Parts: sequence; C-alpha cells; structure tokens
Amino acid sequence: MEEYDLIIVGAGPAGLTAGIYGARSGLKTAIISKEIGGTANSILLLENWPGFSGTGVELMKKFYDSVKKYDVEFITGEVKSLEKKGKNFIIKIENKEFESKALIIATGSKRKQLKIPGEKELEGRGVSYCITCDAFFFKNKTVAVIGGSDCASGSALALAKVAKKVYVIYRGEHLRCEEIILENLEKNNKIEIIYDAIPKEIKGKDNVESLVIKERGKERELKLDGIFVEIGSVPITEFSKNLKLKLDKENNIIVNENMETSVKGVFAAGDVTNSKVKQVLTSSAEGAIAAKNAGEYLKKSI
Amino acid sequence: MEEYDLIIVGAGPAGLTAGIYGARSGLKTAIISKEIGGTANSILLLENWPGFSGTGVELMKKFYDSVKKYDVEFITGEVKSLEKKGKNFIIKIENKEFESKALIIATGSKRKQLKIPGEKELEGRGVSYCITCDAFFFKNKTVAVIGGSDCASGSALALAKVAKKVYVIYRGEHLRCEEIILENLEKNNKIEIIYDAIPKEIKGKDNVESLVIKERGKERELKLDGIFVEIGSVPITEFSKNLKLKLDKENNIIVNENMETSVKGVFAAGDVTNSKVKQVLTSSAEGAIAAKNAGEYLKKSI
Repeated sequence: MEEYDLIIVGAGPAGLTAGIYGARSGLKTAIISKEIGGTANSILLLENWPGFSGTGVELMKKFYDSVKKYDVEFITGEVKSLEKKGKNFIIKIENKEFESKALIIATGSKRKQLKIPGEKELEGRGVSYCITCDAFFFKNKTVAVIGGSDCASGSALALAKVAKKVYVIYRGEHLRCEEIILENLEKNNKIEIIYDAIPKEIKGKDNVESLVIKERGKERELKLDGIFVEIGSVPITEFSKNLKLKLDKENNIIVNENMETSVKGVFAAGDVTNSKVKQVLTSSAEGAIAAKNAGEYLKKSI
Repeated sequence: MEEYDLIIVGAGPAGLTAGIYGARSGLKTAIISKEIGGTANSILLLENWPGFSGTGVELMKKFYDSVKKYDVEFITGEVKSLEKKGKNFIIKIENKEFESKALIIATGSKRKQLKIPGEKELEGRGVSYCITCDAFFFKNKTVAVIGGSDCASGSALALAKVAKKVYVIYRGEHLRCEEIILENLEKNNKIEIIYDAIPKEIKGKDNVESLVIKERGKERELKLDGIFVEIGSVPITEFSKNLKLKLDKENNIIVNENMETSVKGVFAAGDVTNSKVKQVLTSSAEGAIAAKNAGEYLKKSI
C-alpha cells in the first residue's frame, strides 16, 4: 500500500493550496478528488480573488498549474472511508487504499435541496443546482433562482444575461448579498425579486412548467421553464464518520485557528469547516494554514 | 473634514484586499498609506500565492489594479495618530484629518535591527534591510545574510544569483525555512551557512569591510562587502497607541477570528496582528475577513 506524509481529500481552492504548501514543506503529498476545482468551478464571474477577474474554472486551472510545479500526486477517485491505523490513516477509494501520516479534509460542500414535490422528478429537466452547467439551456426563457445569498444573487445576474426573465424567490425581506450585487440586481429590468416567498411545488409533465410559491401567505403560480436551487450547502463529511471528528450543528467540521480538527493529525480547510467567511480566498488561506501545521505536526511526531 | 464608512491604514496584501471587500460591501472606503505593496514588495520570487509566479512587486501591482476597479480612494500619507470621537475615529496624517465609522489597521511590520556597533554608522554603506532594493550593488561581491527564517533563507538564494559568495549567519542549529528552500541552499556552492553564530560588530571606514561573529563561542572575522539584516520584524503600531488596543508581548495587535480588535469598530489584518501564519495569502484573507466584518458592524451600528 502506497504511503504518504500528507493526503489531501478534495481539490478545490483549499485542497489545491494545501498541495502547494505541503510540497513546499517537503512532505510526500497526494491529493485525492473526483475532479479539480470543486464548487469554485461554478462561479461564473470571480472578482474578489485579488489580482484576478474571470471564471472560477479559469482560476482553478491556474491553481492546478501552480500545484503541478511540485511533486504532488493527483489521484482520481471518491474517498469512501477514512480510518485510523495506529498513528496513521487509511484512505479508501473505490478500488484502492492509501496510507498517510497526516490528513487534510477539504471536500467542501454540496447544494441543499428544497425537498418539495416535483423537485426530484424534474431534476435535469428544468430543475438545476448548477448555473454554470445549465444556464445556456435557458436562453430567452423564463427561470427562477431560489435563495437569497451571495451565490444566489450572483447567479441571478449571470442568468439575466441569457434568459428572458429571472425571478429571484427569497423567503426573507432582504437579500444577504454584497451591496454591489444588490445594486446590479435592482437596476436589471429582466430581474424580479419576490420577497417573503416560499416554494411549495414544482409542476410539469416532461419538463418544468411552473413553480407554486407562497408569497406573503398567498399562493401564486409562476409559469417558467427552469428553476435554479441555491439555498445553501451542506458540508461533505459522511466518508469521514469513522474518525468521529467533532462537527457543529450543521455538520461542519470544527477547526481551531491552526485548522486542527478534534483528531490529532487530521486537519480541515475550506467550506467543509465551521469558519464563518466562505470565499475562494479564505478557503485557500485555510488550505495553506492546514498544510503548514500538518508539516509542524509531522516534525514533532517523528 | 472628509468622512468615510471605512478607512484602511496600510496598502499591503491585507490592506488592498480589505479595499476590494470594503467597496464590494458598498462602504465608502479609503486606503491611507505611504506606498503600495508594503513589505510584499521586497519578495523577489513569490510562488506560494496560488496561480501566480513572479516578484512581490508584480503581484502587488495586480492587487492594486483590482482595487482600482472600485470606487476606493487612495490617500498618500503616513498616519500620525488615531483617536476616538464618539463612535467614530479621527485619522491624522501629516497635514490633514479624516473621519471614519470603522477602521482596519493593516500597517504590517518593519525589520528588526541587530543593535551592534557599526550597524547604524554603516547603514546604506553596506548594511541593508532590503535585498530587493540593494542586491545588485553587490554583484560579484561577498555578502552575509543574518537570520534563519524563511525570508532570510530565500534572500540568500536570491543574492547568490548576483554575489560571488553569500554567508548565512544564524544563531540556531537548524534554519527555520521551508524544506524546498533548505535543499536549494545546501546544494548552492556559493552559499556557506554558519550555524550557532552571533554577530558582534560591523567594521569599516567608509563602507562595510568585515563582520565580527562569535561562532560556537569563538570570535571570527569575515571579510565582506555587504550585510543584509533579516532577523525578523516588529509590527507597526505606535501611531495607534491612543486607541489602547490590546497587544501581545511582541506588540502584535490581538484579533479574534473575525479580525476584531479589543476596540469596537477597529479591525486589524496581516502582519500587524497576532496570527501565527504570516504569508501574503493569509494576510490577504485576513483583509477580506476584516472588511466583511467591518460591513456587518456598520449595518448593526446604524
């Protein structure tokens, strides 16, 4: 079984940066992931990574190129389980096992579902969780974005460039997004924001045809062709349950300022943690801090 | 007197990033600094900012260009004092005053001095604290780098490209630098590392002629032309003393995970804080977190 100093699970901003810092610390490092870039790939316009303006995919390509300068091994696969073996860890993917002296979990998060009638049935037939992937199927059509966060609002702007009309459906009274995004939303006449609204049902035979919402207590049916669900994310941690890491109420992995988890030798970084600010920039910095401290941990534990 | 929502003191990685995030949060933002880039400008080869490889000056230029996309005012000047005025703050530079509802201190740090005979007298005549500025004066000459940190070691490598010989003078037994840098130091035959050595005196009439060290208890005199002092930094906080911010033993401003200082409305980010990892990347992330939380603070305090 192949043995490493450091295995990083996940290859988004946190995982890739951890790869750079792990290698620079002289650690035999591998990154295991299904894909490169993670959810950062779904950012259509990223302007708050200093010194850069472009898509998330473009920035993640740059990150990947930086990692490739070093002797970091990329292993493609989905991690099925993590287990302790003495002071080391066993990482299992579909058909192979690896052993590592330290671990960084940087698996990020996945989108929450609405859990209303019609959602599951019409997924991929008008219901989407990925604007980057699906926006262009809705050229000159009517769509709704459900959610009120930075992501949801940014998505609505991106969609308005292709769609005929974009509803933003939000349960609260004020969108939780940057002021600059809010201003752009409000002055875009393709966009209609519906506040105090709860999605109730998605209707359609073969494809999405309408969305039933409860707006200020009253039912209303919006005719539309597509629905983008952007109501937040849940951290991806199931595979790590054997390690019994301490999680918060929302299942985020609890870390301290050194990105140490409750288990010695296991670090976490990025969207999978309980950090409050969730940005490509802060995730990347967490990856650096995790890898630096993994290096310190390994020096001490020899 | 001009009034702002947010004034950022300092324009290194932390301050510039705070500018981007402040503006994106809709805050009327100004950055006050003597120069753009701060100590990041002295990095000759920066390879651990993901997606980038180049000098610190080049990266800081990119950061600056990112800030300039927004309506952020740049004010050139050295901040002389910070004071409270009700819930607001008064920021004084040489000849002008500004008022702000929130503050981010991102003034970074400055180089420590050796405090040995000859250092002050020969500063600028062979004694230097800035390799980027002065390396090329020592083409084909013999120089010493004093210090054992990442910065000192990286500097020695950079110097070896131009100088004839580079001594690294370090008081400890192991250099505190990344493994990749250590390897490169050891295989470079222009570089001689002297461990367990303490600088005692710098000699020279008009220019530096030699350095007296105590090596493993014994005095030794090295003939050389230049000395680069890289023994660490001290945070720049004097100007803020009226605010009575809580500092740690090394005068770093104590911040929590939200980059809040002990005074409401005052945030700090980057090398001036007590954060353990000091990198362009982590400073930048701290700038983002500080500005996000300054925005939250202003929302609540209206």
